[in-house]
Amino acid sequence: MKILVINAGSSSLKYQLIDMENESVLAKGLCERIGIEGSKLNHTPQGGEKVVIAKDMKDHSDAIRMVLDALTDKNHGVIASMDEISAVGHRVVHGGEIFNKSVVINDEVKAAVEKCIPLAPLHNPANLIGIAACEKAMPGVPQVGVFDTAFHQTMPQAAYMYALPYDLYDKYKIRKYGFHGTSHKYVAQEAAKMLGKKQEDIKIITCHLGNGSSITAVDGGKSVDTSMGFTPLAGVCMGTRSGDIDPAIVKFIADQEGKSLEDVDKILNKESGVFGISGVSSDFRDLEAAQNNGCEKSKLALDMFAYSVKKYVGTYMATLGNVDAIIFTAGIGENTAIMRKAILDNMEGFGVEVDDAKNEKAIRGAQMDISVDGSKVRILVIPTNEELMIAKETLELVK
Amino acid sequence: MKILVINAGSSSLKYQLIDMENESVLAKGLCERIGIEGSKLNHTPQGGEKVVIAKDMKDHSDAIRMVLDALTDKNHGVIASMDEISAVGHRVVHGGEIFNKSVVINDEVKAAVEKCIPLAPLHNPANLIGIAACEKAMPGVPQVGVFDTAFHQTMPQAAYMYALPYDLYDKYKIRKYGFHGTSHKYVAQEAAKMLGKKQEDIKIITCHLGNGSSITAVDGGKSVDTSMGFTPLAGVCMGTRSGDIDPAIVKFIADQEGKSLEDVDKILNKESGVFGISGVSSDFRDLEAAQNNGCEKSKLALDMFAYSVKKYVGTYMATLGNVDAIIFTAGIGENTAIMRKAILDNMEGFGVEVDDAKNEKAIRGAQMDISVDGSKVRILVIPTNEELMIAKETLELVK
Repeated sequence: MKILVINAGSSSLKYQLIDMENESVLAKGLCERIGIEGSKLNHTPQGGEKVVIAKDMKDHSDAIRMVLDALTDKNHGVIASMDEISAVGHRVVHGGEIFNKSVVINDEVKAAVEKCIPLAPLHNPANLIGIAACEKAMPGVPQVGVFDTAFHQTMPQAAYMYALPYDLYDKYKIRKYGFHGTSHKYVAQEAAKMLGKKQEDIKIITCHLGNGSSITAVDGGKSVDTSMGFTPLAGVCMGTRSGDIDPAIVKFIADQEGKSLEDVDKILNKESGVFGISGVSSDFRDLEAAQNNGCEKSKLALDMFAYSVKKYVGTYMATLGNVDAIIFTAGIGENTAIMRKAILDNMEGFGVEVDDAKNEKAIRGAQMDISVDGSKVRILVIPTNEELMIAKETLELVK
Repeated sequence: MKILVINAGSSSLKYQLIDMENESVLAKGLCERIGIEGSKLNHTPQGGEKVVIAKDMKDHSDAIRMVLDALTDKNHGVIASMDEISAVGHRVVHGGEIFNKSVVINDEVKAAVEKCIPLAPLHNPANLIGIAACEKAMPGVPQVGVFDTAFHQTMPQAAYMYALPYDLYDKYKIRKYGFHGTSHKYVAQEAAKMLGKKQEDIKIITCHLGNGSSITAVDGGKSVDTSMGFTPLAGVCMGTRSGDIDPAIVKFIADQEGKSLEDVDKILNKESGVFGISGVSSDFRDLEAAQNNGCEKSKLALDMFAYSVKKYVGTYMATLGNVDAIIFTAGIGENTAIMRKAILDNMEGFGVEVDDAKNEKAIRGAQMDISVDGSKVRILVIPTNEELMIAKETLELVK
């Protein structure tokens, strides 16, 4: 069975066609600048070269049609006809409190995703456009919605509520949702396999560290707390996002700088994080290079990032009461040994012991245990694979 | 040597006269409604009954004069003349980055406290008025400033910086300051004595849990991180303050409710916390009573408070790497056994073991170790005494 995975942004569309027989990626690609001059499709078939097709895409329907053409093309295609696609799995950012798991999309589901737009005003409309385009291009093929927030719907109320007037929750559903759920769920499953245990029997902390970062406490396979909040701004320091700050700072900046709330929002989301501190870059490779050249603010930015993650590891140790493993995933989590070391530095007293040699030897794309042999808490590097997880959830619902 | 301790608010003035020979409180009291109709002085001499003196106080100078009159009064006074007062110690809320310890007040100091007014617009002006009133009433008597923020000035930069654009720190000194420093410092000193160790040799977590609450990681007698932030709004859930929330919520509330930033600020500071969740009270005794009567929101509020403190205990376990003791102090920390138990529940895996019998037997006003005999981490209840700490710091500077 072959499943097409779609991640639609406002002017972009990422896709992967996955063969679920062996979980291999038959082809993947990206439509850029949809509805904007200069739109193009980047398409890479399994084992082949990347093909760039520059062609006008006036909307997401055009984009999907181009994707289907590329997938069935005589030269760079990977399937004979689009009938081979059994189902489409869509990444949907926000499922609010309505969706605690993936669902087959119907009119009711689309209406519910629309209802969540105030919670994700940039993402959910784009996700809906992607769904509509696929429905139009592939009538009769089941469409499945996989939500970034669903995995975290198991959080207990004391973890997801903010200490605000209760009626703000009743009226607007202001609460902690958490994000990156598909990734946290995937690496939590893989961690259980690596440990040779059932998910139900283990407590783990998953650190998804990428351009956006979040940390989750997973108890028996269920998310019980996570660092992102009502929006993806909260939690640890990120590439350009501030993470947690004293909420009183919002008004202070607006007052002192004479800025609107939109402007302050932009500062916190786009001009902060390690980029805001360093003034250099949001890319950790650039920051490490700058630090090595003596840039003190880049060093500070990296120190702050490591410390903010370390604090959440401690927080969720207390949440869980006992920890079997700490998992690192996503760009920084998978590839930056020095950061993993800094985050878990000086935690031997809690049974957390990084093996420096293993940590430095971790191979890109491979699962690896980087803890010393006797470490009470296992420390695992697990490459995330949100597309595969979306395909798996889709398969589960349509088979 | 007798030292007068002053805590001046915008329309109030608290005082204690302390005999440093034996650290006993000779008299204490409160001037209320200064500059407002119906002002009065509540004065309690050591071992005597409370005296209420209703009299117009048009300003803080009037108030100080009434305090000095009460202290030297034939009937309810405790000293023969104000010449017996060797020095005055003033609580000053915000010392910014200028003051990392207590100082004898001179014109330069007053100018610096004034410079910190933007950081504490309600408190520092009142503190300055109290200082001016004492200087006028008691010329030649040394005045000392003891800052709520000073103890936390030892935090490393990676702990006190927010991941915001660096120039916001340069321009406005937006950073974490922390508060309750006098209390955290006092109980940290007492904890070392109880453990029979030098402060330099121990790592502890101090939980000041009162109407405002903050948690501090103290390493070798120095604050290395604390839960309050740029303002006292951040950190754990409090009586009426939200504590940490996703900073994006500020804009969301303003937009959805059509409110100004002043209004949102008021919601976060005055209408949130356990009061906002329960809708019942900010007083934990009321909440426990309501919970016992089946009020689910009161139960949720108490659960959220306990969980928010537990998370910071975990956070600072990671910060410190190793913990010798966890300290509870202030109204809730000293008096609410059920809350101490809830906060440290299920942390035996980290060597934190509450002895239920000892915990419930803890006597109001007494220092007590409530951990089980074998607990790796000692759990101590230590009544705070900010006034005595202010008097000690004052004595140190003037003797």
